[in-house]
Amino acid sequence: MTYCVGLMLNEGIVCLSDTRTNAGLDNISTYRKMFSFEVPGERIILIMTAGSLSVTQTTLAKLDEAATDTEATPKSSILLAPTMLQVAQMIGQTLSETSEKIANRMGSNASSASASMIVAGQRKDGEMRMFLIYPEGNFIEATADTPYLQIGEHKYGKPILDRVVTTETSLADAKKAVLLSMDSTLRSNLSVGMPLDLAVIEKDACRVTESRRIMDQDETFNEMSRAWSEALRDAFVGVKV
Amino acid sequence: MTYCVGLMLNEGIVCLSDTRTNAGLDNISTYRKMFSFEVPGERIILIMTAGSLSVTQTTLAKLDEAATDTEATPKSSILLAPTMLQVAQMIGQTLSETSEKIANRMGSNASSASASMIVAGQRKDGEMRMFLIYPEGNFIEATADTPYLQIGEHKYGKPILDRVVTTETSLADAKKAVLLSMDSTLRSNLSVGMPLDLAVIEKDACRVTESRRIMDQDETFNEMSRAWSEALRDAFVGVKV
Repeated sequence: MTYCVGLMLNEGIVCLSDTRTNAGLDNISTYRKMFSFEVPGERIILIMTAGSLSVTQTTLAKLDEAATDTEATPKSSILLAPTMLQVAQMIGQTLSETSEKIANRMGSNASSASASMIVAGQRKDGEMRMFLIYPEGNFIEATADTPYLQIGEHKYGKPILDRVVTTETSLADAKKAVLLSMDSTLRSNLSVGMPLDLAVIEKDACRVTESRRIMDQDETFNEMSRAWSEALRDAFVGVKV
Repeated sequence: MTYCVGLMLNEGIVCLSDTRTNAGLDNISTYRKMFSFEVPGERIILIMTAGSLSVTQTTLAKLDEAATDTEATPKSSILLAPTMLQVAQMIGQTLSETSEKIANRMGSNASSASASMIVAGQRKDGEMRMFLIYPEGNFIEATADTPYLQIGEHKYGKPILDRVVTTETSLADAKKAVLLSMDSTLRSNLSVGMPLDLAVIEKDACRVTESRRIMDQDETFNEMSRAWSEALRDAFVGVKV
């Protein structure tokens, strides 16, 4: 499984992903699930992935190949596409084609050849946008009503987002919200695991303005996790029934 | 969907269930999912149900018929069975037989003819016990390590239980914990809905010592829900990253 979450706020975009990949409980590995395509100051596209590793790796390899091709065109490269909407469409198209090809080879196991992605970013003179791309290539977009998107194991970490995140949330609070959302998920689902990748894209910067890998022994994260547990227990004691 | 949760603590048993039943989003009804078989002071068996309504209703009707039969024996009636373990086995057996019969009639839709149950109780001179009975009739039991069991939509309400519930938890705190666990679930899953049924079985009382139906407009519950939201937001503000 996986947990990735992205927030689209007035001040910018905050994304967090875990790195655990597993084929059964007895075959666990660490793979990065957050990828950026960037022309600093001109365009930033951040992609987070969930689902079949062979599908997501192949999709990203194809997108990368098309983007770095010397004959790349606005129709073929996500770094040249004129709008973020077209970027999402291109990624959706590549994802569904890759998934279909792999599923065809897998026969009756085809259902495991699917993947979904969160695509967030901005091009110069454009708006920040964030999409959740489904395995079939269609997508939905984050809006002011629901300024966050999740893929993978989304349930454990949703209550905290519902309670504290609005488009007005500051980037500092947003980082805290995604980390606490991940903390709840890590506690309850073994197939979501450390280390974590955190990225912040400030509005109009058109580049990743903060990027951090949070390791298992990260003291700040562990201290936050401990403080949150304690605050929850205190809150529990304080509530009257 | 459904959410039912049971805690087995040193001081007694606390159970909470919702009442929403749905066949699709456009066909929603209210059905009680908590049932008690009781000989006050002698034996209490509390059953909570999740899954196919036709399976759970038929299973309960059969258990009731067998228990009230004038020729009931310790082998046929859960009110006469010598131990709680045998009660769980009888319920499991009845559940799996009912489910199989209905599934056979449903052909390719057979997968929707399944249900699970939480069975909690105590007989005089016996221990309190609590079981989660799977659709196939097998079961697991609550233990000191994990003193709670859940059926239905269990994910949203699990973090609070993990953080505050141990076998040492008082009955008052246990009621609060299950209500807050339900509150998180109600917020996130439309197929779990009010009113709620709450039951407490104090240790060695061998009867339901507190039983409450909590309606949609229940002021105490709404006030608790509001206070918990506020406490969570305060806790969020207080945590440093």
